[in-house]
This record gives sequence, structure tokens and C-alpha cells, in this order.
Amino acid sequence: MTLEAQILSQLKKAREASRSLALCSTDRKNATLLSLAKALRTNAGAILEANRKDLEVAKNSGRMGAFLERLTLNDARIAAMAKSVEEVAGLSDPVGEVIESWSRPNGLQIQKVRVPLGVIAIIYESRPNVTIDAGVLTFKSGSAVVLRGGKEALATNTILANMLVQSLKDAGIDPAAVQFIDTTDRDAIQILKRHPEAIDLIIPRGGGSLKEALEGSAVTLLPHFDGLCHTYVDRAADLKMAEEICFNAKVSRPSVCNAMENLLVHREVAGKFLPAMAKRFIAAGVELRGDDATCNIIPNIKRATDEDWDTEYLELILSVKIVDSIDEAIAFIGAHGSDLADAIVTQDKDAAARFEREVDSATVYVNASTRFTDGFEFGFGAETGISTNRLHARGPMGLRELTTYKYLVRGEGQVRT
Amino acid sequence: MTLEAQILSQLKKAREASRSLALCSTDRKNATLLSLAKALRTNAGAILEANRKDLEVAKNSGRMGAFLERLTLNDARIAAMAKSVEEVAGLSDPVGEVIESWSRPNGLQIQKVRVPLGVIAIIYESRPNVTIDAGVLTFKSGSAVVLRGGKEALATNTILANMLVQSLKDAGIDPAAVQFIDTTDRDAIQILKRHPEAIDLIIPRGGGSLKEALEGSAVTLLPHFDGLCHTYVDRAADLKMAEEICFNAKVSRPSVCNAMENLLVHREVAGKFLPAMAKRFIAAGVELRGDDATCNIIPNIKRATDEDWDTEYLELILSVKIVDSIDEAIAFIGAHGSDLADAIVTQDKDAAARFEREVDSATVYVNASTRFTDGFEFGFGAETGISTNRLHARGPMGLRELTTYKYLVRGEGQVRT
Repeated sequence: MTLEAQILSQLKKAREASRSLALCSTDRKNATLLSLAKALRTNAGAILEANRKDLEVAKNSGRMGAFLERLTLNDARIAAMAKSVEEVAGLSDPVGEVIESWSRPNGLQIQKVRVPLGVIAIIYESRPNVTIDAGVLTFKSGSAVVLRGGKEALATNTILANMLVQSLKDAGIDPAAVQFIDTTDRDAIQILKRHPEAIDLIIPRGGGSLKEALEGSAVTLLPHFDGLCHTYVDRAADLKMAEEICFNAKVSRPSVCNAMENLLVHREVAGKFLPAMAKRFIAAGVELRGDDATCNIIPNIKRATDEDWDTEYLELILSVKIVDSIDEAIAFIGAHGSDLADAIVTQDKDAAARFEREVDSATVYVNASTRFTDGFEFGFGAETGISTNRLHARGPMGLRELTTYKYLVRGEGQVRT
Repeated sequence: MTLEAQILSQLKKAREASRSLALCSTDRKNATLLSLAKALRTNAGAILEANRKDLEVAKNSGRMGAFLERLTLNDARIAAMAKSVEEVAGLSDPVGEVIESWSRPNGLQIQKVRVPLGVIAIIYESRPNVTIDAGVLTFKSGSAVVLRGGKEALATNTILANMLVQSLKDAGIDPAAVQFIDTTDRDAIQILKRHPEAIDLIIPRGGGSLKEALEGSAVTLLPHFDGLCHTYVDRAADLKMAEEICFNAKVSRPSVCNAMENLLVHREVAGKFLPAMAKRFIAAGVELRGDDATCNIIPNIKRATDEDWDTEYLELILSVKIVDSIDEAIAFIGAHGSDLADAIVTQDKDAAARFEREVDSATVYVNASTRFTDGFEFGFGAETGISTNRLHARGPMGLRELTTYKYLVRGEGQVRT
């Protein structure tokens, strides 16, 4: 069988399974999730064993730093995965939720009701917890899922996907609702993107090469691409608060899309703020790259190039720029940001309001770290990723963002005049 | 200047204008709309004059029937357009609307707030009222609009678009927020679809050839394509009610996407229902095409071919099929419908509930005509069309469906642990 025939056969099974899954009761779905959480804990040893294999291959092929960090599972991360599955079981089922209802002067009763999307393909890179997070959210939202993880995590993803399939089987639910694409052949992505009749949505989570691979997709994409986040320290900032927020935004997990890449500081406070801040960053191993004004305040750091301001490092590197006004900060973010997560630190309410209104990002922060751009942190119970799209869903996605709706219209013989 | 350079220059102006329009006050937008409504009424004569030119050309080039009906304006339709503009002025502004707000255990306050989409291109065919309906809804929703109408309506669309632009100018709003593509060159569509950096969304409203022209679009589409609607007359139907609903669904305006194309009748009531129904249809000029069982009940009608069940006629033609059960009806609609609007006529609550649950259409009707699938009829004040997409917006679209959202997150120095 060719790769295309094999994948098409998987997609067909997914479509069929999606029809019965759409009608599956909440209780049954939740029981399935709880048994999966248990299985994750029970089989932590086997999961770590598979993950060690992946890590070994990755290290041998020269992978380093942030890449390995994303690929690595440990007891704490497996426990977090299991806990997240339990939290999804505890979330209310979006399917059947009445979003709105109203009646018309002619007596028609209209309800807008949430329904499953159908078949969702999730294409991700090296982070294996996505197999579980995305798999269970899609499942609970009533859609069949096609999972295609990065080749470096194949062993880990395989065991995780098998556990998901097994938990459906055990619950008497058509296990074809979870389809794991177990080839490392990059053609698989080319095949998936050609079949809008079989897939309702592709959620790609990755960087530039995935973006390129999906160009010209005939299937609608809900991309999870770049995160080039800014923090702007305003002239009216509480500088101690600003230091904590900036440190957290850069250092707490530099490999993720909500980490800060560009720091903007108002000229009036730069002299007071930057020396202490820089000292702390440098002590934490952060490489700083500054504009001329910054380099005058912090000696012995690299000068930022034009390219730096547009680079998502995902490493312990930070570009620092001094601005003359909030207008300059907002304009700079508009020109260089990825519209994902940007923050202002200020005690000035008017400045905060302007920043909120004029910065057109999925998540706009006042006096908090951009690292909160995350489904868990937003209270969604888990996340299927963070949408960088403007349509359908924007920013952190939870269960509802994986559904669509239909209108139920009830009459007593009404006709249109 | 090449066509591409000319269109790109229009798109660039639209993007710039979208930034100031996004911050424009509700009062100012509404005043602009009210002055447009007045201008439409005052200039009805000039609009009809332009429309007569379009109609003459269309007739001379052999256009007929439903096509001419869609192209035609008259005093009543212009009055309806003006009224619809006033209704949009009366609708609440979606921009800035707080969709949801909540706080997190760590004290973060999160608001989900509606914001404009940016630049929306609307590509439509011969119905000139779309220029006004779509133009004002996009305007009120805070996005710049690129209008590309059918070449047969060029004269009518041009005068309507100019009135829209003039009303922005008069109100001191950047008139570049409305861009009318005034070429009949079909390449314009090919150019628009290549520029996702300039256009956030294309809304295509039309048939198969437009669908084809937009294949491989790099810009996200929110299509308004086919409407192949069913009415199912259940065994437990009130047959007099069924007759009124079916007659309305087919005859009241056959040229639109929410008109019925396939009629399904339960075998137990077919003998009683169909003769009177057929008589009324035939008297109204409807050509009936039946399956074998239908042809046995109604003699002298055409036999429906396999193709008939999958054809959106948009004319006074109706295919009729007798089914053995609600299961067969639901399966038939799943196989042949376009998932836009489907109705059941029944007094049986269980049958109604099953139909609502299992028919996966944007609008599912119980005891009412599918012709209600329309923004006005849903109470949206106007409509930008009817989405046949499953993502972002489904079914009749109003103001909200033209927006996106962002999250505002307010803290007091919170960092992520």
C-alpha cells in the first residue's frame, strides 16, 4: 500500500468514527479520560523508557538545548499530563452547550448550539505531551483526531497514542477516533494538506519549516506558529515589579512561544532600571543585545542587529531597546511583534488603557508576565496550543475553540413572507 | 500601472485606513450610516438608472431568469437597502464588547474583548445590494472592506460603492476604508487571493466558478457557496402545515441558497400528501422530478436522475423522493445536502429531537421553512451572507461574525511559577 493510500484509509476511519463520537455521552467520555489518566501513571516507567530512546537518538544526531528540553519527559511531566487529563474530565462538555437563544417576532425559537468540528489533524514537533493534551481535548470536544508528531519523539508519541487508543477501546468507543500517523516520512504532511474532504481542520504547532511545509494547504489551518513577545517598561512603571516580570518572561522557560524576546524600556527610567536588570539577566546566563542607548548604559554587551528585533530566539538571548515614548513602543511592537503576547509595566492607568486598546495582540498584559499565555494559566484545563490566527480562535485554545455550532430553529408552521 | 500594482496600492490604503477605523467611535460610525441611508433614498433615481444599464447589457448577452432576478433593483429593494443600513446603525457595536471576563486564583483579571478583523475582501456575483449590505456591516464592525462584485452589476455597484465612500468622506473618516475593485478583469480575484499579508479574510459569495477561481487561495476564505436544502415531511407531520412550508421553501424565492431543492416524504403519508402538494407546485410553474415511488403517485412528471439529487437548481425545479423512515431521510440529507439548511415537518417530538441532533447542518428547522436562513430573519439587522464553512462562522452572519477578539490580562506584578 502506498503512503497516501494508507493515510487515506486512516482518514476514512476517522470520519466514520467522528459520527458516533459526536453523539457520545459526556459521562462515557469522562470515564474514558479518567482511565487514561490512571494508565499514564501506571505506565510512567514504560513512557520514560521510550522517551529515553528518543532522547538518545536526538543527542546522537547533534540536537541540543531548547530542543532537548522540549523533548524530555520526566516523572513530574508525566504526572502533569495525567493531572491535565483529569482536569479535562472535570471540565464541562462543550458539545450541546446552548451558546445563545432568542425568539423572533414571528414566534420562531432560535438556539445556537455547540457541536463537534468533525475530524481535526494536529501536526506538532518535538513536545510529546501534545499527543495527550491535544488528543484528549479533541476527544472531549467530540471530534476525531489525526495526530502527527515530530519524528524525534516517535517512540514516546507512539506509546502515548497507543494508550489513548486503548482507553477508547476499553470504554467501547470506536478507537478509530484517534488516528496516529506513525511514519516519519515528511510526505505525510503533504498528503494530509491535500484532503479537505477528509479533514475539517489542521492545527500546526511548530516553526518555520512546518509553516513552509503547509503552504498552499487545501485544508483550513489554525496555525500555532511564532511567538515574538515584548515587554515594555513604561516611564511610570514600578521598577521592582518590572524587574520581576521581565525576569520571569525571559528566564522561566525560554524555549516556549510566550517567552519575551524584545525588551523595550522608556528612556526616562532606563538609567535606573537597566543596570540592576542586566546584572540579574547576565547572572542567569542571558545574553543581552542592545541598541546604542542600551549599550551606553550596559557596557560589554553585543549590539543588536536589524535581524535581532525580528528573531524568536527561544534561547537565553534578549534584545533590549530604549524608546522615547509609549507611542514608539506601540509602533515598535506593531512592526516587530507576532501579535501573540505583549506586556506593559506601568502604574499609569491612561498608558495601560492606550496599550490595551492599540496593541493588537491575542493577549495584552498590564503588569504581568507574557508567560501566562497558556491554556492552563487561562483556566481552560489544558490547551491544544496557542492560535496565532485571527480567525475562529485566537490565543490560548481550550475545548470550546475545537468546536463549531449550529442553529436549531423551532416553529409552528412559519413561512417567510 | 499593472492591475496587480493598482490592486496592491488599494490594499495598502485599506490596511492603513483599517487602523484608524478600528479606533473610530460608535456614534461617528452610526451617523455615517444614517447619512448613507438618506443618500440611498435621495439618489434612488440615479441608482435605478445605473441598474437599467446593467440589466440591458445582461439581457443582450442572453442572461435570463434567476440571474436577472438577482441583478434587478427597484424602488422596494432600494428602500429595503436603506432600511437595512438604518437597522445596522441601530445595532450595538460589536467592537469593544466584553464577551467574557473572569479572574484566576493568582488574581489575574482576564477579559475577552471583541476587536475588528482588519481588512476583509468580499467577492460576490450579480446581486448589487451586497455592495451596501456587506459594505456597511464590515464598516460598522470596524474593518476595512475590499468589494469585488460581478461584472454584470458593475454600473450599479460603482454608484453604490461611491455613495458609501462619500458618506465616509463626509463624516471625516478615512474613505480608503472602502475599496471598490472597479475592473471586470477576472485576474483581480487571482491577485486578491495571493496576498494574505494584505487581506485577513476573503468572503466569497457565489457558485461553482467562483469556488474554482479561489482554489489554492493563500488568504483564508469564509465561503458562501452552495445551498442544497431539504424538507422532510415525516409520517407524523401536520400535512396542511407541511404543504405551506414546502410551498414557501420552494416557490417564494427560488433563486437563493436557502430555497428547497429536494423534498423527502415519508411513505406512510406520501399518498395523502403528494397529490395536493404536486397540484399546487405545478400550478405555480414548478417542474417536479420524482423517484419511482413518487412517479407512481404523481403521473406525468420527469424521473429524477442521480444527478438531480445533487443539483442546486436555483430555479422552479424540485426533486421529490419517498423514504421509508426518518433514518433514511437523515442519511439522505447527510449524503446529498450541503449542510446549510434542512427542515423536518412533524408533530412527533422524538422525531424532531433526533433530526435536530443528527442532521449536521448550519440551520436545522422543525416545522418552519428553510427560507428563514438569512441574517435579517435571524435578527442580525442585515447579513454579510451565509457561511457554508464550519470554522469561525457558520450559517447566517451578522456583525459579530465579522470580528475577532483579544484577551486583556490585568495583574499587579504576577509572574508564572
